[in-house]
This record gives sequence, structure tokens and C-alpha cells, in this order.
Amino acid sequence: MVKDDNMTAANLRSAFGGESQAYMRYSYWGKVAEKDGFKNVGNLFEAVAYAEKVHAQNHFKVHENIHGDQLVPSMAGFGVGSTSENLEAAREGELFEVDQMYASYIAVAELQEEKDAKRTFHWAREVEKVHAELFEAAKKDVDSGKDYTPSSVYVCEVCGHTHPNDAPDKCPVCGAPKQKYTEFAS
Amino acid sequence: MVKDDNMTAANLRSAFGGESQAYMRYSYWGKVAEKDGFKNVGNLFEAVAYAEKVHAQNHFKVHENIHGDQLVPSMAGFGVGSTSENLEAAREGELFEVDQMYASYIAVAELQEEKDAKRTFHWAREVEKVHAELFEAAKKDVDSGKDYTPSSVYVCEVCGHTHPNDAPDKCPVCGAPKQKYTEFAS
Ligand SMILES: [Fe+2]
Ligand SMILES: [Fe+2]
Ligand SMILES: [Fe+2]
Ligand SMILES: [Fe+2]
Ligand SMILES: [Fe+2]
Ligand SMILES: [Fe+2]
Repeated sequence: MVKDDNMTAANLRSAFGGESQAYMRYSYWGKVAEKDGFKNVGNLFEAVAYAEKVHAQNHFKVHENIHGDQLVPSMAGFGVGSTSENLEAAREGELFEVDQMYASYIAVAELQEEKDAKRTFHWAREVEKVHAELFEAAKKDVDSGKDYTPSSVYVCEVCGHTHPNDAPDKCPVCGAPKQKYTEFAS
Repeated sequence: MVKDDNMTAANLRSAFGGESQAYMRYSYWGKVAEKDGFKNVGNLFEAVAYAEKVHAQNHFKVHENIHGDQLVPSMAGFGVGSTSENLEAAREGELFEVDQMYASYIAVAELQEEKDAKRTFHWAREVEKVHAELFEAAKKDVDSGKDYTPSSVYVCEVCGHTHPNDAPDKCPVCGAPKQKYTEFAS
């Protein structure tokens, strides 16, 4: 939990808003990909959407002691294009989170000695690096006229770590065992 | 779709942000309710979360021709309390949407002659009225020491209309037939 309604709490809200919108956007783009015949890209979007849900709810939990309605400013990507364009927009959003948003939020959490917030931001940032790579790989496949190659994607329910084809024995981000991974198969 | 990036487009983004966060909050509060032994309240939260997902994605679709990253300011409720407290916070959020948010957004959409946006705001507002009533009923049950009475809740996948126990022959909000309802059972 956070100490009080400080800058870190505002950052948790903003990250919650951004992750909630990312969940919603990826669910939608996933349906577009499936409709356009890219089943495995649809499955990837669905798996990553679930990972963003894990991030959003982890942030919400750390913020649980602060009650009430708040105006939440958060960044979000918009627009519906071709699946190649949607994958590129998704990758750019992930890189913004890695380079700007979570990098800044982690620095503030450190300054304010907010350990729980620092951990949930750190886990999310490490996972977003993977998401950017997965979307890049999927875009390469789509741009060469194919579907995304892996038909199965695993997501760690503790931190959202996302891994194509199989689950690692131990989550490289949060240390959870293999059994904590959920499979998404197209 | 919207004509251009006008005030209605900004309102669609804000409503998308608010609905996305409502989805996430209700999913979380639903898990809390189940953990506390209120299975049917957990099921109600899950069904209403799905309805908010329908609202968010309907707004996203109307906004689909505007591309790029945007700072989205949206209202959201925070905090995790007892299930009775969570139901009350949920009801207050629904009433804010009915009385303030969607009432205002509909007026602006009318002024700007944005038909698609007006429809998605109107459908959501009608459904939020129902949500406020359902949360009030559930809170009454919980406050008298029982679980929420209905163990089954139906949601219209077109507009999010939410109905306990059974699906109406025709959705009273969007006119969709009975087959468009998804059942949530605890
Ligand atoms: Fe995330
Ligand atoms: Fe991500
Ligand atoms: Fe993990
Ligand atoms: Fe809604
Ligand atoms: Fe609602
Ligand atoms: Fe409906």
C-alpha cells in the first residue's frame, strides 16, 4: 500500500488508467486481427491484454487504502487500422511505457520510499519490454504475408510476463513457478 | 465515426477511459466479493464489468478514425473496502455517469451533430441507470447478511444492458433479440 495520497499514488492511478485502456484496446485490436484472418495475432493480442489486466489490478491493489473518486490523466493510443498498423501502434505504446512512463514512476517511487509501488511499476516495465518485442515479431510476420508464427502464448498471472510457445520453469520477472502461467491458444 | 477531433471526440476518449477503469475495478471488487463468500455479488460484478467492456469498445469504435496517442482525463473510483462499501462506491460511480458525465456528453454530441457518438453515450447512460439499481439491491442483500439473491445475470453484447434472472425477449435499450444476451452464472 502507499503511505498517503502522494505523487506515487497519483502515478499508480495514472498507470492504472493507462493499463486499463491498453487492456481494452488490445482486446479490440485482437478481434480485428481475427476478423482479418490473423488468428495467432488475435491470440497474441488477447494474451497481452490479459497481462495488462494483471498490471492494472496490481497497481489498484497497491493503491487500495486511498478511497474516493479521482480525475485520472493517463496516456492511451487510439485508432483502428490494419493489423500491421495496430501492431505498430501497440509497440510504440509499450516503448513509451518502458522509456518514459514507468521509468519516471519508478524514480518517484524510489524518492518517496514507496516499496510496493516501486515493485508493481518495475514488474510492469520489465514485461512491457517483452511486449514491444512480441509485437515487433508479429508485425514482421504480418508484413511478410503470414500470420504470427506461435499459436500459443503463456502469461504469468502474478506479473503478466508473456512468453510464446511455452512457459519458463521460473518467471524471469517475478520468480513465480511454471504453474502460475496461463496458456492462450488460438 | 466522429467528424474530426472535436469536443465529442475528447468526450469519447474520456468515456473510454472511465469505462475501461470501471471494467477493471469491478473485476477486482468481484474477486474480493467471492473471497468474502458473496458468490452472487461476485457474479454480478463480473457481469457488469462485461457490460462496461461493451461500453468502452462501443466508444472506441466510434472514435476509430482518429489515430495517435492522447492524454486522457477520466473520472474513476478507487479504494478496496468491504463488499458492502464496494457496492456503494460502484452505485455512486454509476449515478455520476448518469447525472453528470453521460448527460453532458450527450448534450455536446447533439450540439455537434455527432449521431454515432450520441447513440453510444445514450445506450451507456440507459444501462448505467440499471447498474445503479442492481448495485443498490445487492447492497441491501449484503447488509442484511445474505448474498445477492439472483445467481444468474444476463448482459446484452450490443449495448451492455444487464438483467438479473433472465433475458428479455428484446433488449429495452438497443432492441437486440434475446440471443444477443450472454449469461453470467455463479
Ligand atoms: Fe502493462
Ligand atoms: Fe504491455
Ligand atoms: Fe511473473
Ligand atoms: Fe458503462
Ligand atoms: Fe455501469
Ligand atoms: Fe442491448
